[in-house]
Amino acid sequence: MKLNGFTIGLLVSFILSAVAHYIKAPFFTTTVQFIISCIAIIFVAGFLGKATESVAHYSGERLGGFLNATFGNAAELIISIFLVKDGMFGIVKASITGSIIGNLLLVLGLSLFLGGLKFKEQKFNQNLASYNSSLMLLACIALFVPAIFASSLTSHENSRFSLIVSVLLIVAYLLWLLFSMVTHKNELADEVVEHGEPAWSKGTSILMLFVATVMVAFESEWLVSTIESVAHQFGLSELFIGAFLIAIIGNAAEHSAAVLMARKNRIGAAVEIAVGSSLQIALFVSPVLVLVSFLFGNPMNLVFTTFEIAAIGVAALIAKSISQDGRTNWYEGVLLIVVYLILGIAFFLV
Amino acid sequence: MKLNGFTIGLLVSFILSAVAHYIKAPFFTTTVQFIISCIAIIFVAGFLGKATESVAHYSGERLGGFLNATFGNAAELIISIFLVKDGMFGIVKASITGSIIGNLLLVLGLSLFLGGLKFKEQKFNQNLASYNSSLMLLACIALFVPAIFASSLTSHENSRFSLIVSVLLIVAYLLWLLFSMVTHKNELADEVVEHGEPAWSKGTSILMLFVATVMVAFESEWLVSTIESVAHQFGLSELFIGAFLIAIIGNAAEHSAAVLMARKNRIGAAVEIAVGSSLQIALFVSPVLVLVSFLFGNPMNLVFTTFEIAAIGVAALIAKSISQDGRTNWYEGVLLIVVYLILGIAFFLV
Amino acid sequence: MKLNGFTIGLLVSFILSAVAHYIKAPFFTTTVQFIISCIAIIFVAGFLGKATESVAHYSGERLGGFLNATFGNAAELIISIFLVKDGMFGIVKASITGSIIGNLLLVLGLSLFLGGLKFKEQKFNQNLASYNSSLMLLACIALFVPAIFASSLTSHENSRFSLIVSVLLIVAYLLWLLFSMVTHKNELADEVVEHGEPAWSKGTSILMLFVATVMVAFESEWLVSTIESVAHQFGLSELFIGAFLIAIIGNAAEHSAAVLMARKNRIGAAVEIAVGSSLQIALFVSPVLVLVSFLFGNPMNLVFTTFEIAAIGVAALIAKSISQDGRTNWYEGVLLIVVYLILGIAFFLV
Repeated sequence: MKLNGFTIGLLVSFILSAVAHYIKAPFFTTTVQFIISCIAIIFVAGFLGKATESVAHYSGERLGGFLNATFGNAAELIISIFLVKDGMFGIVKASITGSIIGNLLLVLGLSLFLGGLKFKEQKFNQNLASYNSSLMLLACIALFVPAIFASSLTSHENSRFSLIVSVLLIVAYLLWLLFSMVTHKNELADEVVEHGEPAWSKGTSILMLFVATVMVAFESEWLVSTIESVAHQFGLSELFIGAFLIAIIGNAAEHSAAVLMARKNRIGAAVEIAVGSSLQIALFVSPVLVLVSFLFGNPMNLVFTTFEIAAIGVAALIAKSISQDGRTNWYEGVLLIVVYLILGIAFFLV
Repeated sequence: MKLNGFTIGLLVSFILSAVAHYIKAPFFTTTVQFIISCIAIIFVAGFLGKATESVAHYSGERLGGFLNATFGNAAELIISIFLVKDGMFGIVKASITGSIIGNLLLVLGLSLFLGGLKFKEQKFNQNLASYNSSLMLLACIALFVPAIFASSLTSHENSRFSLIVSVLLIVAYLLWLLFSMVTHKNELADEVVEHGEPAWSKGTSILMLFVATVMVAFESEWLVSTIESVAHQFGLSELFIGAFLIAIIGNAAEHSAAVLMARKNRIGAAVEIAVGSSLQIALFVSPVLVLVSFLFGNPMNLVFTTFEIAAIGVAALIAKSISQDGRTNWYEGVLLIVVYLILGIAFFLV
Repeated sequence: MKLNGFTIGLLVSFILSAVAHYIKAPFFTTTVQFIISCIAIIFVAGFLGKATESVAHYSGERLGGFLNATFGNAAELIISIFLVKDGMFGIVKASITGSIIGNLLLVLGLSLFLGGLKFKEQKFNQNLASYNSSLMLLACIALFVPAIFASSLTSHENSRFSLIVSVLLIVAYLLWLLFSMVTHKNELADEVVEHGEPAWSKGTSILMLFVATVMVAFESEWLVSTIESVAHQFGLSELFIGAFLIAIIGNAAEHSAAVLMARKNRIGAAVEIAVGSSLQIALFVSPVLVLVSFLFGNPMNLVFTTFEIAAIGVAALIAKSISQDGRTNWYEGVLLIVVYLILGIAFFLV
């Protein structure tokens, strides 16, 4: 990584926003912090995109996308564990909802739209699209069934049911990794495309992906801490902040990485980041939080509100309908974004 | 257009039914008017079918079907605007519901069934089927989300939400026209088939389509005016009349045009008339009525009843399931008609 | 059928369990009966599988599977008619629900999983998968619409509505047989595969299938009679016993036949047994029971509980999502089984 303009911008903006966050100097008002963090997130997003691209060169679109999604979600998992410890289940569920619909609708929508403006049609592995749908459906079923039965069960039975469902989801997710990364890896791979020379060697690429993810995690955290106070100034509800603002800003870097991939006609990687990340949250992060809550002795269940289930269900349906043919274009992006706006306005008003 | 038997029958029956409608002579009882209008609608339907076919010869199946659907819906839009002005929102929503399910189930069902009796398998563009599904899903989401959130919002918030959703739907529909008629026109076109000589020149065909549509609009209006009084004699409910009788009789001519196309193995045009018309009503006519209601200062919202949403959702699901492979046969028509009958009986009994 | 070890085991275990059931000797405790019946069901299941395979050799996978499903359901229909006569509608509906989700999730899931462990990918006719989805959707609509409208109708109107819907479903099912077995038989057939020499001649095969089915019906009945008393000892609810235990044990033989077919790479026959059997129950057995109840003068309606409709809807959705590409593997089996477990636990807790 040479010390060119990009690298300097990245380091300066990152360090400045760190200083602004940790040193409570009077001239670092929330608004100043917010502006600095916004500039920095653009740089770290670019860095993450570059690292993902370089890893994808060696590992294939899917593994690259998977690593990107996993690193991104690891940060969110850690933050959520602290919230679970404090018993703030409502905010945790709102942010899970927000991450899922944000990835399925906004990230995927922007990727398809902006990728589609450049390329008339983009293709990815249709088998993968079909599995993504089935897994997303499993996630919806795992939200829907506990909610339907919730009122007929005692609080203790609900907790026990959520615990068992969580274990089943984690097993299903781990078997999915076994299936998609080992036993049927080739059936789910994208066609190999030549992408020219990568920026870094294999080892450096993975290291850079790790470094970029850590920087994204910190920068996101700093940005989120400012956005909350800014948002409250405008009188926005907790639900809207949790499910939309934090989800958007907190995932801004991953979002940019997906769009960047789409603009380079690597739509397979973009889909993996967007849909793969949603699946990981629904089938792994969310159940792990339930398990963790039991260890803390204050069990969280999987019973989401009607609005949250409706939002996730709607997002899964339209994403499935659009992605199932393994071909994408700008108009499919428009449809996803329109649905995201409809849900966003509903959550804003409620 | 030569003065053959068909033309004479068309003109005589049309003029007779006009006379019966406007001149309140004692021997023109409602029953007589009803019978004359029924004969006339068969002739104008045949005329509209012929005009659609001739336009489709020049413009391709899809544009021909689109023009047919648009002209047909224009008449319905005008009638509905008057109802909105009078604040009769319940009847407007019932007739929107009736038009959508009538087109998706009855028109499409009869076209597939009667077309399928003649041809073992009929094919249309599979890409188009896939977009039709996604757009119909968007329409369902736009009905479902406002209904879910309705009880948690004030009446003013509901109106505002419906207004924004309406604007989003209109934007999505206009972009769909841009996408399907301009940027990705060829991907959505049916295979070119030779259909022999058209009846008229290009200009005359368009003129005839326009004339036929105007005749259909008037004849439908006259027929509807008789059917209401006939129906009330048999003690049928407003909801059933609005959602079924008016929708069937009022769209009789378009229905016949779709069936006629199917019988000539132009199933692409038939699907465009049926599904395209549903989409236009859900994504354009219905939101425009919401906008118009705001101009009248008496805002109508998009909150439909549970029965109406269930009916539209069920119709969209089965139509999607059946049409998604781009191939049709008689049994798929049977399935659609069976679902239409189940819904019809439910609305009749309720 | 030569008197080899298998035949001897089959006859001895069957006769022993018959003796245990009918002769109330003191040493034939319920537990002893249960163990004998379990051994016997393994033998009759093997016999049924062998007979199905032999018939399928002559008739093709689908007709063989259809005969297997029909014979299996005939026994259940007869048992249910006696329950309807006694007005035990709740248990009848629970067992209908259990049979449908048991076939769609457990039988199909085990077949795909165990077949998939042996073969990397198994294929069946994709057209058939598409029709199966549409028919299952019709079945769901026929459960959903009466339930939605139920509270707005009088008890008499509900019965009348259920009666009409039942007639429509039976008509749709008979037309489906006409379509799939006569007019479009070839379009829905699986590719012909050479399977070596069949065990019996054509006539003997059909006779053996009949004999095996009768043995299965009796053995299932005997096993079910013991399982109920065993289950009650463990304090299980009626709903759980009806929808899960009886459905699993009562269909154990058919289940084994499907798995056996899958292990021989005849996944088309396995799908036909599992999905075809579900469809037959939903579209034929269940409506016939409604009709029969009217003849008994004590009308049963089609209004199922929310839990039952949710379970059937969820099962239909995931089965559709997984089977729609006509290709199967072990992980798709895992997904179906996970959903079955989630539903099973929910019904167990409620």
